[in-house]
Order: sequence, then C-alpha cells, then structure tokens
Amino acid sequence: MQSAMKLTILGSSSALPTSGRYPSAHVLNVHERLFLIDCGEGTQMQLRKTKIRFAKINHIFISHLHGDHVFGLYGLLSTFSLMGRTNPIHLYAPENYDNILRSHLNDFDIKLSFQIDFIPLSARDPVLILNDKYLTVTAFPLQHRVPAFGFLFREKKPDRNIIKESIVKFNIPLVRIPAIKKGEDFIASDGVIIKNEEITMPPSEPLSYAYCSDTKYFKRLASFVKNVNLLYHEATFDKSREDLAEITGHSTTYDAAKTAVAANAHTLIIGHFSARYKDITPLVMEAREIFPETYPAIDGKNYEVGNISDPL
Amino acid sequence: MQSAMKLTILGSSSALPTSGRYPSAHVLNVHERLFLIDCGEGTQMQLRKTKIRFAKINHIFISHLHGDHVFGLYGLLSTFSLMGRTNPIHLYAPENYDNILRSHLNDFDIKLSFQIDFIPLSARDPVLILNDKYLTVTAFPLQHRVPAFGFLFREKKPDRNIIKESIVKFNIPLVRIPAIKKGEDFIASDGVIIKNEEITMPPSEPLSYAYCSDTKYFKRLASFVKNVNLLYHEATFDKSREDLAEITGHSTTYDAAKTAVAANAHTLIIGHFSARYKDITPLVMEAREIFPETYPAIDGKNYEVGNISDPL
Repeated sequence: MQSAMKLTILGSSSALPTSGRYPSAHVLNVHERLFLIDCGEGTQMQLRKTKIRFAKINHIFISHLHGDHVFGLYGLLSTFSLMGRTNPIHLYAPENYDNILRSHLNDFDIKLSFQIDFIPLSARDPVLILNDKYLTVTAFPLQHRVPAFGFLFREKKPDRNIIKESIVKFNIPLVRIPAIKKGEDFIASDGVIIKNEEITMPPSEPLSYAYCSDTKYFKRLASFVKNVNLLYHEATFDKSREDLAEITGHSTTYDAAKTAVAANAHTLIIGHFSARYKDITPLVMEAREIFPETYPAIDGKNYEVGNISDPL
Repeated sequence: MQSAMKLTILGSSSALPTSGRYPSAHVLNVHERLFLIDCGEGTQMQLRKTKIRFAKINHIFISHLHGDHVFGLYGLLSTFSLMGRTNPIHLYAPENYDNILRSHLNDFDIKLSFQIDFIPLSARDPVLILNDKYLTVTAFPLQHRVPAFGFLFREKKPDRNIIKESIVKFNIPLVRIPAIKKGEDFIASDGVIIKNEEITMPPSEPLSYAYCSDTKYFKRLASFVKNVNLLYHEATFDKSREDLAEITGHSTTYDAAKTAVAANAHTLIIGHFSARYKDITPLVMEAREIFPETYPAIDGKNYEVGNISDPL
C-alpha cells in the first residue's frame, strides 16, 4: 500500500546553491494535500520539474528569515496570482515577516488574486499551529542566529478498515459504516451484538514527519520530535567542522544523528549541505556511525514516509 | 576568430517560468568582462550551470521593477558576499530601487562584504551610463506598465592590428607600437615615413548588442538601437494576440520584427515567451516573415554577436 505521507525534496543546499543543489524547500503530501516547507530561490521551477500541482498547496511554512529559505516566495506568490488562484494561502512564518512580505509585494506592484492568512510564529515552546481532519502541525523553536522554527506533522489516527465481506454477511446498512470505522460495535436487526474487532481491521499506524532546519545542536530538540517516523535534520557540516557549526549556528552530521537517536526517530534524512561537499556520501556514512537509518536529501527525489529505500 | 562580444541567455520565460524556461537574465561578455542584464529568480543557479564565473560580473543592469526581472538579485548578492567578494557591484536600475533593495537586504540581516554603487535610471531619452576602455552602455526608455529601460552595449572601435613582419622589417621599437595601433605613421631612424596602412591591418568592426524587455511596440524605439548587430527584443505573444500585448504592455513577434527592420539590425533574438507556448518555433517563423534573421532565446545557450547560427 502507498504511504499516506510522502515527502518531495526540492532543494538540499545551504546558503550557497550548487549546480545540483537548490536552496531549501520541501513538499509534504498528506492524503494528497500539499504542505510547502521553506521556499528557497527556484522553488517554483523545482515544483514544475517535479510536476507538483501548484493548486494543491494551501499551506506554506517558513522556518526562519534567511534568504535561502525564503527568496523563492515572491516569485511563487506572483505565479499563484498569475494562474488565477482564489483560495487563500495560510502562511506560517516568524512574526515580523508579515510586514516585510506585504511591503515587498507592494514595492513590486504585485496585487495578489488571493488572501494570505498569516500565522505568526514566536513561541519558545512547541505550539499547535494547524489541526485539521487528517493531521496536526506543531511548530517548535530551533536555535539559530535568528529566530527559527521546526515543524512536526503528525497524521491523525486513521479510521479502522471495515472488512467488506462482513457488510454482506451481517447485512450492515451503509449509514452505520462511519461509526463502525470509528470503533463502534454493530447491533444486528435480531439484537445480536457483533463486536467491532470481528468486522473491522486495525488501521495503519499514523505517520509523522519533522523538519529541523536551520539549527545548532541542543538537547531539548529531541524531545520536540519524539518517536517521529521521519526526521529531516540539517547537517551543514561534517563531524570535523564542529567549530564552523558552532560559529554559524548549524549542525554537523553527528549532531543530526545524535538528535535522531535521542528522539527515537525511525529514519533520518540529512540535508542543507555546505557547498564545499561535492559528494555527500561521506556525510551520510558519518551519520550512520551513530544512526544507521540515515539517508541523504537529494533534489527532486520523493520519499515515502515509513518506507524509505537507499538511494546511495 | 572568436567574437569579442558573446551573449549567454540564462532565462527566456515571461512572468510564469516553465520547466525549460527561467525568468529573464542575460550575460554579455565583452572582452572577458561580464555584464549581467536583468536577474530573474534562479539566475545564480543558471550561472552555475553555464559555468560562468561570478567574480567576473561587476555590472548589473535591471530593466524594470517586475519580479521576473529582479527576484534573483537578493540571492545573487548574498552569494557574492558568502564568496567573500570585495569588488564593488555597479547596479543600474530604476531610481526607486535603491531604497527597496537596501531595506530588503536589511530585513534579511544581509550585510554585504562589498559596496553597491547604485546608478539610478530615470531619463526619458537615451543616456550614457557607462563609458570604459572597451565599450559604452546607453540606457533608453521602453514603454511598459512601470518605468522600464533598454540597454545598448557598443564596443569601442578596436585598435588597428600591427602586421608582425613589419616590426622586424622596419625595426620598430616596442614603445612605438601603441601609437601605431592607434593609426600613427612610423618614422624610421633614417627619417623615412612609413605609412600606417603599410604596417597595420584594419581592426574588426566594433560590435553592438541591445536589450529591449519589457516593452510594447513604439516607433521611436528603433531609433535608439539603430544599426545594432544583435537586437534582443521581447516577443511575449504571437502575432494574433495584439490585444493581450496591448493590455499587458508587451510585444508580439511582429512588433519585435518591425523594430528590427526599422532599426536596420543585423540579427534579432526574440524571447520572454509566454508560458502558453510549449513550442516556440512558430513564433520564430512568424518573426522571420518580416525579419528573416530572427533566432529564438534558449536558456543556457551562448550566442556570438556577429556570428549566430540557427539552433532551430
């Protein structure tokens, strides 16, 4: 069965893009609804290349106000508008970005055809920022040179799956099925109680994805992303460059892997690689010394949360 | 002999980029000095792909303040800075952009490692904006929805080429050669005057390139780019969409070709194609009905000014 949560990485570079790596942008697909996380320069072109449907994006999350995570947004919003979009965009970003964005769109005479609902991020503790039918999203603080936030996407527990044969066997009216999927027993017309476990199968486990970029290592971070299926964590530097990581507020491969271990994550993807690394295989190998289930972020690649295979 | 003026087109889309066409950006190479003209989103990634050396760019020209001509600039300036650039950038742009740019860099906490020398554009007539050893650059007004400018790059008349054998034959001291290349005769030690034409060859004709985007058709434009070798002119629409061209302040294929004819241009490149055209061959064919020496703008392609071959 296909995973209900799929990640497409559009950009895996740090501040300096390379010919093969664009600045940060992820698209998370949860039950065919798309969540754009960060929007580095070139995001709209990468969306075209990966054939992702612009209209399915209704929520955009900006982790922090550094250009390599934001500078694709002006073009993308413009493009939405030129395509005649009318659905609002829910934009989650550090609190001061609302004014910056509106003023810059104004400078460029961009009149959007849709509303931007701005949800300011400022909390020092995890806070629920989205709660809908299929999932919750929590923002949590990172530690970087400017206020920065990670995002945890948790699928809600899916309904139980009804066993099709039991519908005929017990003559279950369609109108009762939603309640049964929620776990109710079925009372047959003769008054006999059919236990829910007899007519349904348990649902798949809910999936989760956490995005942690940009951040230096700090112990509390693991507690924000406890037991996550897929942890994306930046690893700008190799383990020998702790000094640079410290100065710049970034992480090494070891930092990312340590957080994955402490969080009891199932799988780790590292990215946001410094342009100094032509080949990122050694970075992945380093992280695997500590956390074996580590995979690299690769531009344009799709990852099924809960089912990631090795692209190395 | 290689042309002293080469054009690389980094982006040929109009406001909506496609998977194969990025927003506007051209790099003109004149005697190995690079001039960046417009800087749409993704320009720095296209520079990487075309292996153009960032450090050779010292002059950036912005035609007008629409995002598809500007939104790559923030990332590019950031990258210059991260690469440790110290040489100033000469930025030629509509006059109100100075404040917009500085305020936006400030919003993003970007402290550049180099100066930006801002040259404001506002004139209603052609004005010389750069005059150096090898070339002059003139800005001239276009007609668009916002103030917009075209740029004409004219190579200065190169020196005459000295005939190597004559140096030995007439025993010409090295110190005299620069003056001879400028056209002076040589007076030999016995007082005999050797005519310049005897010891030099005429130089190649100076080359020129004009960039016209975005603009609607207007008659006076041709007079600004008279006799240019290579005219780049936007052709957002095919000839049947005059109505759209009029409303949006853009040109059709015929408009571009008519200006090329009236200007007595040698060669025309059309670009800034609307995303509606998957195949741009018919647009080139249309323009050729009026101006046969028309070629398409293609992302990543190099064009030798004065020597363009057919990529169709």
